[in-house]
Order: sequence, then structure tokens, then C-alpha cells
Amino acid sequence: MRIRYVKNSKEVLENCVFLITNPKDKYFNNDHPIILEIGMGKGQFILNSALNNPHLNYIGVEKYDSVIARAIEKIAPYKLNNLLLLREDALNLNKYFNNQIKTIALNFSDPWPKKRHEKRRLTSEVFLNIYDDLFCGNCHIILKTDNLILFASSIKELNNYGYKFKEVNMDLSHSDIPNVLTEYEEKFMNQEIKINYIECTKEKKWLFH
Amino acid sequence: MRIRYVKNSKEVLENCVFLITNPKDKYFNNDHPIILEIGMGKGQFILNSALNNPHLNYIGVEKYDSVIARAIEKIAPYKLNNLLLLREDALNLNKYFNNQIKTIALNFSDPWPKKRHEKRRLTSEVFLNIYDDLFCGNCHIILKTDNLILFASSIKELNNYGYKFKEVNMDLSHSDIPNVLTEYEEKFMNQEIKINYIECTKEKKWLFH
Repeated sequence: MRIRYVKNSKEVLENCVFLITNPKDKYFNNDHPIILEIGMGKGQFILNSALNNPHLNYIGVEKYDSVIARAIEKIAPYKLNNLLLLREDALNLNKYFNNQIKTIALNFSDPWPKKRHEKRRLTSEVFLNIYDDLFCGNCHIILKTDNLILFASSIKELNNYGYKFKEVNMDLSHSDIPNVLTEYEEKFMNQEIKINYIECTKEKKWLFH
Repeated sequence: MRIRYVKNSKEVLENCVFLITNPKDKYFNNDHPIILEIGMGKGQFILNSALNNPHLNYIGVEKYDSVIARAIEKIAPYKLNNLLLLREDALNLNKYFNNQIKTIALNFSDPWPKKRHEKRRLTSEVFLNIYDDLFCGNCHIILKTDNLILFASSIKELNNYGYKFKEVNMDLSHSDIPNVLTEYEEKFMNQEIKINYIECTKEKKWLFH
């Protein structure tokens, strides 16, 4: 995503009541499953998901101040109690979550198309390792992307890491898989760009210390 | 592939000296690895592969008389001793091979796009089961297709069956993966059709009776 400089983003973040500032054992007042979207961008997917699914909790993670500020402005008017945001790098997620997350959603993540950057992709082994500790039960990832390099590499990485694919689809918009659109995806709707989709799970290996 | 009726195909098959007619323990006069192409069509891939790799043996399987007749006419002049053909349905391959095959190649297989036909796809569990017994060592499959339904379904089936992906690529022609073109693929070369590719392996489970 192209990042537009937002003048008052620092202030927007400081005044946001649904922004996570410190790690907690319990982020919501109920035990509903938590869906974590990493790289939520301007927040359309997570906002609509939270609105449509009051029985689920959502946390949107975004690392750029200016981007999360836009999401905050969009989400604030709804005063939702099942949606929180976190401004953080995905590399630091284990500071905030431990056995708390039901599902990780990766929507149109940065593809990092160059071979030398492949470890930065959110489905590289580096990140799959981090995710392992976040999940409260079996690991469960849903991913969508229009980028073929990211898609192919995600298939390989998830497969090699032991994930089993429940769904693989290469034309999401014309499938019967339920789908909440992102801003990015909405722009594609009238174009011939196909959206690729994966849903996969992996048994959680519990380590008792 | 559209099948054109070839008048003398029966005769062409009868006179072919490199057509397998009966199961054998040993198909070649050496112990070079055997690559089996299932659904070889008119034979361009297997012919060029055999020409380029004299240290490897090739067997091309095709179920339609008229199609294999075309392949025979194309291959015959080369008098290759590392290439045999078999006119057979893939469902019957275990009558011919047992622990003999190094690699199975699936090139532009019939996608059987309808959900109710998915078991007929050459990467459905039905066929993966059959392939298990053909391999002499670890199971090794290479696949290419332009069809997104077949590709997505193959990814899911191979993954769920325990295969590990060594390569996943969604634009084979622009990758550095070595590639021998099929007739079908050659037609696409000047079009914007992307070729999808998988190379995958699975440990062979030996059953001792």
C-alpha cells in the first residue's frame, strides 16, 4: 500500500480508546474467539467483519502510524466492543499474545517479490514460527492475495511447515467461499484481477515447561 | 485435448516396436531412473525429454488410440532406446509398474472442472493412492497446468496426502525452472496465459507383506 503522510496521526492514536497499548491476559470482556488480522491497512475488512460477527472478537494489527490513523477514524464512529487495534510490527506479536488467537487473517500482505526479501513475507518460516505461540488451539490461517509470487511462496511455506489446506481457490470472487472485501479488493472488482485464497490449519504442538 | 479420429491408428499401434504390450519386471536394458508421463498426448514433451536426457528412461502413457498413434508417428523416426509408450488408462497403471518409477509427470492433464468429476483429476486421492505403489523410492511428482481449478485442487490434494512442495510457481515461462515444452504449451507462448508448476515429494511408506 502507498502510505500517505497523515498530519495528525500521532494525536489520533493517542486519543483512541480501542487501541491496545500494553500486553494483557484478556483483551475482551468475554471468551469469544479472537481473529487477528496482521497488516489490516485502512481497516475495511476488520471493521465489516466485526460488524457482521458480534459473536467474534477482532484485533487489527498495522505497523504504520499514518495507516492505522486512517483505520481509527473509520472505525471510531461504530463504538464496537468486539474490535481492538494494535500498532505494532508483526515480528513483535509474541509480546502481546500467547495462546489467545483463534485465527490469523492475512489480506493482501506486502508480497516482497524479490527473492532476497522472501523472509519478510508474512508467510515465511520466520513468521510461521511466531504465529505458533499466538494460537489458543490448532493453528488456523486464512490468506488472500492477488500476488502470484506471494501466493506460490505461501503455498510452499505453509505446506513445508506442516499446515493442511482446507481451501485453495484461485478465483475467490467467483467462488462460493464467504468473503469480506478489503479496500484493495474493492478496487479490483471491476477488473480482471483474480484473488487467490487459502484456508489452512495445523495441529498445535503444546510445549509444557 | 480435442481428439481427432485417426483412420489407421490401430495399425500404427500394432506395428509399434516401442509400445509396451505386457507388464514386465524390467522395461529397459539399464537401471537408469524411469520418468512416467501420464497423459502424454501427442508426445512432444516426452520425446524432447528423452532426446535431451539419454541417462534417463521415459515411459509415456496415453489412453486414446488416436492420440497415441500421433505420438508414435512423431517418435518412431528417432529410434530411441530410452523411451517406451503405453496405451492404458491411468487407473490400471499398477498392472504394469511396481516400485519401478522415479518420477511421475503430469502435463496439462484434463482438469475435470466440475465438482462432481473431481475424483477423475489425475491428482485426486484415487490416483495418488495408485501412484504410491509405482514409485521405486520417494514419491516424486511434477505437474504443470494452465487450469486454475486443477491447480488449486492439486495443491490441496497433494498437501493433504502428505506431499511436500519443493517448487510452486505460477508463471513457469518467466521463471528459471528448466522446462520442456508440450505442444499445448507452445501454443500459449505468445499469449498471456500463465503456466502453473508444482514439484513435490513424499516419503515412500514401505509395506512388507
